Amino acid sequence: MNQIAVFSGSAHPQFADAICDNLGITRSPADTQRFSNDCLQAQLLDNCRQRDVYIVQPLVPPTQDHLMELLLMVDAARGASAASVTAVIPHYAYARSDKKDASRISIGGKLVADLLMTAGVSRVMTMTLHAPQVHGFFGVPLDHLTALGEIADYYRGTDLSDAVIVSPDFGNAKTASQLARLLGIPVAAGSKQRKADDRVVIDAIVGDVAGKRAIVLDDEIATGGSIVELVAMLEQQQVSDVSVACTHGLFTGSAVERLRDHPLIREVVATDTVPRPDDWPELRVRSVAPLFAEAIARVHAGESVSSLFDGVDPTHAPPQPKLPL
Amino acid sequence: MNQIAVFSGSAHPQFADAICDNLGITRSPADTQRFSNDCLQAQLLDNCRQRDVYIVQPLVPPTQDHLMELLLMVDAARGASAASVTAVIPHYAYARSDKKDASRISIGGKLVADLLMTAGVSRVMTMTLHAPQVHGFFGVPLDHLTALGEIADYYRGTDLSDAVIVSPDFGNAKTASQLARLLGIPVAAGSKQRKADDRVVIDAIVGDVAGKRAIVLDDEIATGGSIVELVAMLEQQQVSDVSVACTHGLFTGSAVERLRDHPLIREVVATDTVPRPDDWPELRVRSVAPLFAEAIARVHAGESVSSLFDGVDPTHAPPQPKLPL
Amino acid sequence: MNQIAVFSGSAHPQFADAICDNLGITRSPADTQRFSNDCLQAQLLDNCRQRDVYIVQPLVPPTQDHLMELLLMVDAARGASAASVTAVIPHYAYARSDKKDASRISIGGKLVADLLMTAGVSRVMTMTLHAPQVHGFFGVPLDHLTALGEIADYYRGTDLSDAVIVSPDFGNAKTASQLARLLGIPVAAGSKQRKADDRVVIDAIVGDVAGKRAIVLDDEIATGGSIVELVAMLEQQQVSDVSVACTHGLFTGSAVERLRDHPLIREVVATDTVPRPDDWPELRVRSVAPLFAEAIARVHAGESVSSLFDGVDPTHAPPQPKLPL
Amino acid sequence: MNQIAVFSGSAHPQFADAICDNLGITRSPADTQRFSNDCLQAQLLDNCRQRDVYIVQPLVPPTQDHLMELLLMVDAARGASAASVTAVIPHYAYARSDKKDASRISIGGKLVADLLMTAGVSRVMTMTLHAPQVHGFFGVPLDHLTALGEIADYYRGTDLSDAVIVSPDFGNAKTASQLARLLGIPVAAGSKQRKADDRVVIDAIVGDVAGKRAIVLDDEIATGGSIVELVAMLEQQQVSDVSVACTHGLFTGSAVERLRDHPLIREVVATDTVPRPDDWPELRVRSVAPLFAEAIARVHAGESVSSLFDGVDPTHAPPQPKLPL
Amino acid sequence: MNQIAVFSGSAHPQFADAICDNLGITRSPADTQRFSNDCLQAQLLDNCRQRDVYIVQPLVPPTQDHLMELLLMVDAARGASAASVTAVIPHYAYARSDKKDASRISIGGKLVADLLMTAGVSRVMTMTLHAPQVHGFFGVPLDHLTALGEIADYYRGTDLSDAVIVSPDFGNAKTASQLARLLGIPVAAGSKQRKADDRVVIDAIVGDVAGKRAIVLDDEIATGGSIVELVAMLEQQQVSDVSVACTHGLFTGSAVERLRDHPLIREVVATDTVPRPDDWPELRVRSVAPLFAEAIARVHAGESVSSLFDGVDPTHAPPQPKLPL
Amino acid sequence: MNQIAVFSGSAHPQFADAICDNLGITRSPADTQRFSNDCLQAQLLDNCRQRDVYIVQPLVPPTQDHLMELLLMVDAARGASAASVTAVIPHYAYARSDKKDASRISIGGKLVADLLMTAGVSRVMTMTLHAPQVHGFFGVPLDHLTALGEIADYYRGTDLSDAVIVSPDFGNAKTASQLARLLGIPVAAGSKQRKADDRVVIDAIVGDVAGKRAIVLDDEIATGGSIVELVAMLEQQQVSDVSVACTHGLFTGSAVERLRDHPLIREVVATDTVPRPDDWPELRVRSVAPLFAEAIARVHAGESVSSLFDGVDPTHAPPQPKLPL
Repeated sequence: MNQIAVFSGSAHPQFADAICDNLGITRSPADTQRFSNDCLQAQLLDNCRQRDVYIVQPLVPPTQDHLMELLLMVDAARGASAASVTAVIPHYAYARSDKKDASRISIGGKLVADLLMTAGVSRVMTMTLHAPQVHGFFGVPLDHLTALGEIADYYRGTDLSDAVIVSPDFGNAKTASQLARLLGIPVAAGSKQRKADDRVVIDAIVGDVAGKRAIVLDDEIATGGSIVELVAMLEQQQVSDVSVACTHGLFTGSAVERLRDHPLIREVVATDTVPRPDDWPELRVRSVAPLFAEAIARVHAGESVSSLFDGVDPTHAPPQPKLPL
Repeated sequence: MNQIAVFSGSAHPQFADAICDNLGITRSPADTQRFSNDCLQAQLLDNCRQRDVYIVQPLVPPTQDHLMELLLMVDAARGASAASVTAVIPHYAYARSDKKDASRISIGGKLVADLLMTAGVSRVMTMTLHAPQVHGFFGVPLDHLTALGEIADYYRGTDLSDAVIVSPDFGNAKTASQLARLLGIPVAAGSKQRKADDRVVIDAIVGDVAGKRAIVLDDEIATGGSIVELVAMLEQQQVSDVSVACTHGLFTGSAVERLRDHPLIREVVATDTVPRPDDWPELRVRSVAPLFAEAIARVHAGESVSSLFDGVDPTHAPPQPKLPL
Repeated sequence: MNQIAVFSGSAHPQFADAICDNLGITRSPADTQRFSNDCLQAQLLDNCRQRDVYIVQPLVPPTQDHLMELLLMVDAARGASAASVTAVIPHYAYARSDKKDASRISIGGKLVADLLMTAGVSRVMTMTLHAPQVHGFFGVPLDHLTALGEIADYYRGTDLSDAVIVSPDFGNAKTASQLARLLGIPVAAGSKQRKADDRVVIDAIVGDVAGKRAIVLDDEIATGGSIVELVAMLEQQQVSDVSVACTHGLFTGSAVERLRDHPLIREVVATDTVPRPDDWPELRVRSVAPLFAEAIARVHAGESVSSLFDGVDPTHAPPQPKLPL
Repeated sequence: MNQIAVFSGSAHPQFADAICDNLGITRSPADTQRFSNDCLQAQLLDNCRQRDVYIVQPLVPPTQDHLMELLLMVDAARGASAASVTAVIPHYAYARSDKKDASRISIGGKLVADLLMTAGVSRVMTMTLHAPQVHGFFGVPLDHLTALGEIADYYRGTDLSDAVIVSPDFGNAKTASQLARLLGIPVAAGSKQRKADDRVVIDAIVGDVAGKRAIVLDDEIATGGSIVELVAMLEQQQVSDVSVACTHGLFTGSAVERLRDHPLIREVVATDTVPRPDDWPELRVRSVAPLFAEAIARVHAGESVSSLFDGVDPTHAPPQPKLPL
Repeated sequence: MNQIAVFSGSAHPQFADAICDNLGITRSPADTQRFSNDCLQAQLLDNCRQRDVYIVQPLVPPTQDHLMELLLMVDAARGASAASVTAVIPHYAYARSDKKDASRISIGGKLVADLLMTAGVSRVMTMTLHAPQVHGFFGVPLDHLTALGEIADYYRGTDLSDAVIVSPDFGNAKTASQLARLLGIPVAAGSKQRKADDRVVIDAIVGDVAGKRAIVLDDEIATGGSIVELVAMLEQQQVSDVSVACTHGLFTGSAVERLRDHPLIREVVATDTVPRPDDWPELRVRSVAPLFAEAIARVHAGESVSSLFDGVDPTHAPPQPKLPL
Repeated sequence: MNQIAVFSGSAHPQFADAICDNLGITRSPADTQRFSNDCLQAQLLDNCRQRDVYIVQPLVPPTQDHLMELLLMVDAARGASAASVTAVIPHYAYARSDKKDASRISIGGKLVADLLMTAGVSRVMTMTLHAPQVHGFFGVPLDHLTALGEIADYYRGTDLSDAVIVSPDFGNAKTASQLARLLGIPVAAGSKQRKADDRVVIDAIVGDVAGKRAIVLDDEIATGGSIVELVAMLEQQQVSDVSVACTHGLFTGSAVERLRDHPLIREVVATDTVPRPDDWPELRVRSVAPLFAEAIARVHAGESVSSLFDGVDPTHAPPQPKLPL
């Protein structure tokens, strides 16, 4: 059995360290140089020969620098004769560019998958892709973890009377209904519409939320604009209390102020797939590093990763029935 | 400018003929042999050198035979020095296998895209993929046409008072809301749940349908089981009248009886991306062959295909705004 | 050393079981779903991580379904992080499409090899390809087993006086002469000609067969048409007794009646690379499952497979002399 | 329509000139340097941008130098932005290495095809491959010309009474029977056997040759050893007169003496796919340069190449019937 | 002949405009969105079908953003069915990472070439690569332009008495000697050494510079640190006057102050492959946009690009002699 | 851990034996056939399954035959299911063709790297590439060994007073300065110029050599023409004594006479990456086989190869500083 070496890019070394702690190993050092012409160069400072190399890097801002650093580290590991190179990308942000929304537009989620394969990844490990179809963009094995169990665990310890799961849009509604089912409560979804002035607005809530307490679930929160807009709609329907949950809590722009100080938003729950903001101690961060560590340990031992999520996510569940009835 | 040659597999030659009629050309003959060991062999009976070859074949039952025939024809065209080979697949049925729904499961939509590229396609033209992300499975240019305008045109000529668009599930809800917007009426969606006995059932309608007249929209109807189940749910909510529309009307198994004879289903509307059933004269079939012909003509003339769908589908619309607000 | 997991498609599970019996292991379960739109989906029901996965599937009718099932299983195994994926294809039926027999025709034997590589096979194991050059269609290692030793063993136990090996055509004559040499008897071959009416007929026997007893050897028998035609030619030359042998006994169409009930054909010998017909108890089936099991065991132990066929087939023989003298 | 540029390697510039003469164009100059460390470097001395480049080079001795020169010229043409690069290889000598004749042996015919594609060929044009299956080794379009019509034309002008076509082995027997059919005479074939001392010998003639006049047909003659051995066998059967024909007349080693001075061999017929020997004025060389020129002209005009060989070779014939009867 | 469409990324639109002006065409508009999670999305706002698309983008800071924008634009052009996609990269900054300078280090110049090919470039056009070998990193045709003629033209108009060309290191010495030859003056070079404290310093001038006037030539100037260090060495050898020339004048960090205000540096000459600094009006910028425009025009017309540089750079010169004497 | 099998081509079996001796294993036998049409065929005569196969072959004259033999052996090893195939190429002669020195010229160093990857190498091990950038031509891991330490060791045992390292040209000057640094002596370099008559001549020595004793260092010496020319220049500057050192001592043409008998050349030092000439007993050959053996052993044990060269070559040194200052 090959030895494991875990390296981290500069995006989120704390998460890599948490994985290593859970695995009981020491993180291998790496060094990234920025030349005076702004080009990057990566160097791995530990032997890679015949080792299963894991490189941990979520695609958080500055996203392009972190992506290029990851690609260079993968290239260096391959060139250094690693037995395998796994890109551990807790947040694959480019998954949002997953379709042709307009003419002559790039599909970044597919392109970045291709770039990773070109750089030399043997496998990818990630969490909560924006759409499950993004899995198919990869021609190498991909372990798609879910934070749904972790989030459900949190809410199981809270009062769920009169609660309803609300998805900001239809795209996330299927995941929202999975959480709803895990918690035994109903689900609703916002309906987005493109306005004449080229802005997307939530123009309706599909499903019954009137007078209830809402748990809003999204995969990623960046500026929080959609969430705030949704909460305004919920307020119109006499929703009295909102808890917001997401896997990837980027909180860019004025998100922290918007969400932290919103009178209706009681709390925000996120995971540590991305670094937490400095100025928001009340943010409830659930660590998914143990999940990643366990997945890596199972990969290494040749055990099933999907059974780690039995009963949580059908993506990782036992054999499924015939799909179209 | 290269000459065009349009060939048809054996799945739906009428559709290929309709395209050729619209283009004002004659379909080129091809021959498929089935050997006594059940292997297929394709031969193109028209010169292909330096021509832009189009091969028309929807993936309808027997699906594997039609897929293999298509792959063999593509292989023959490439080997015959075609300038380019476009697979025109009005119904890309394998798009339904677009994600890992369970452990160690195949992703057929991605695999078949890879097989087509291996066989030698330069481009693919298709309509109404099950999920827009399937576009990203292809490493060659893909023209993704939509039947939404054609379907909207039909309903614009009907009484839309008290009507609501209903999607059978969340996955199709975004498309349903586009049709709703084109027609100026509201939208609702069924919420599916996996039962303990491994069956998927629609357990709720999210959105207000009580007492309304429903237009159910789906991308593909095979056995019609989901539609009948959804109509039963609608009936419970005093929906008085149901019109069913889809792009791909396969109507396999007992679908014709189920839908044709259902007391609440007033009509069914489909397109001709797949052959129509023999025993259902009342089925309203809208031809999309002119759309395909126009798209081919524009490709040939180097004109924009997306502008063909302006105002119909944002996938084909002018520049879009920033996505996440 | 990685563990082995042997899966079977639905074409010939008995053969996979026989291999597993010989290896002393249990076959791993798999499940293939047929959706209502006739698309297939494969799921492997045993952990594949870091295992050497073998998928057993001869390409027998319905050939396209079995091929697609195999491709999907390979795709699933690769996506499930198998260490290697070997397609065990006891009968690679598409090998008959091995050249451009006419203009603009597909070369199915090459295309299917490319499809298998695209799906993700690491290696292929097969038996008695229609032409040895088909080996070169594969860009991955291929273990090409031969049934010649098994067939020779059968005839060594019979009366070979006045016997002659007869090949139905020149293409198979080299293999026929190998069997002849193993048995120490002469060889003859039919000469095929294309008739004006586009039928291929055997118009002559090249070699001396008059008054002898014939052992007809072919690689595959499907409808048996060629065999019956050859036997008629042999009858004209006073051949008194015919034994027919082949590796792949498909016996499609009216083959069973034609051959079983033919007055001059004393017996038919085949192997179990394909399922035996139900209604032909007299068919002499020699099992090659032990050969496949031994080959798999040797691959696993890193031992030579070719030495398994020393003295049988020069393809697996020791160093050869300079070819062109 | 792009312009054509025809370059020649150093193997057979006369043949390239003959093609150019037939096309009415001037050959473009090229220069190959041999460095003092014996590495080669190719330079094309004519502009290649947006031109269809043809590089003429048969693989004749010194074969490795000519192969490498061809690969370097292809690389240079691709790097110089040629619209397409066609390797015109009148004699693809590596086709003889078309199968695994022994354990752990290279398949040179496949490897060289792969090398050509790696270097950047868009298409290959060749003549009389050792086995038709070699076509399938190429992943790019290949135009496979035949000299059979040219050879038949020669014999049509001679006395064919009592004549029989004889193939030295079974592998070439199918082509021999095609020539026999074109000339309306019978066919026979030598049966080769591997001796205990690892030499291959012709141990029998299958078919009736006694007292006849033989036309021996082979694809390639190198040292002529097989031919001389076959003639000795024919002599034992009272064959009184032998004419020898081949497509590729390499005549290496002592072939000229052996064949030119053999008492039973009346004449030898070959084509100019390879340079003719200096010291054999009696050798009858039929030029196939007009065939290559016509094929290039048709490729350029987008016309069918196969129709050039109607009635000569079924490989280039109209639609064929179902193969296995 | 296909139409041309020239797009620009956001790195240097003035340069793209200058090219378009020289070509007499209008630049096609494009739009790059930055999502709130910092991912980029590119959209081309002009039809690309069957057009030869050129995308102009030097890799200047912020380099990773400009690189990713370029890759996304290439992806969009390919997906929009462009006939060809040429990346025009006036400054390919990653060329400096062209070798393994240390263990387990990335080779960015090769990786970025691979990424560009993965995104879909058909061809690359660039100027003055850091090392000529970087050409070989690309598997697609690359037009490598040189600014040497432009720089020589400038100095031909100045007083060259007592002048010597000085290269900061050996790596650039060959190019420096070409300029020296064009101007008819001698050449010298700095010798760099790695110090114990891991800094690289220039420890000697190889060649005679004492009392002369120096023209320092480098390919790229970023912070200007090497140049200043070299000038200090020159000062020690009584060099009285320094002119500095480079192709790519990035002038990052404090370069402007360092060089503009240096007492010994009389002038700095650069080209416009990258945007000029705002606060340095004395910088002498020679435009190479006409060279790029002419090269594009020649590519489009199928004419030689290399003859554009006859007599300037042997890389673009007529046939060369045998290399190793 | 897989077993190792070391094979040798016919170029330099003594070197392969020396490696095996150092590893304490026996060389595995192989056989290369030359067919009468001059095509080669390789056969490996030892089991390769699941073994790490090393094939030793420097690219020495006849270079094309040795290259093709190497490619065929790699192909055979891959087809024989080797776990990995490492091409050990002590002298990669094609590295000299590393850039486009002229229009429409091949880049042999890149092409041969591509050919090796096509044939199936998993890794390459080589020594002293002509330019370090050639490393980037390979898409597989490459271990680049250096003989600099071995050469320095030799000179450390000699009198170095008044000695100067001289590089024949700027291209090799960086390596020369590394040796100079290891020995604590200065460095100089020849400046080459292309003459009007298309010859390259050394027209100046850059650096101070007058009256000193010269150690001329080059990577490869073929005919020795450059060396003799350089020595003539050195003689003009009163250099009294010359020692010549190189890694790859091919000594083709009249090199032995030129160098052995030159009055100023006291000695020539080379390594055994290529076979030594028969008629030059005074040539000082330092064996680098132990270095290759140690590198193979480390690769096999998963240990660092670069640390083998600590302090010798920065290419193999510990983490490097920021490159451009």
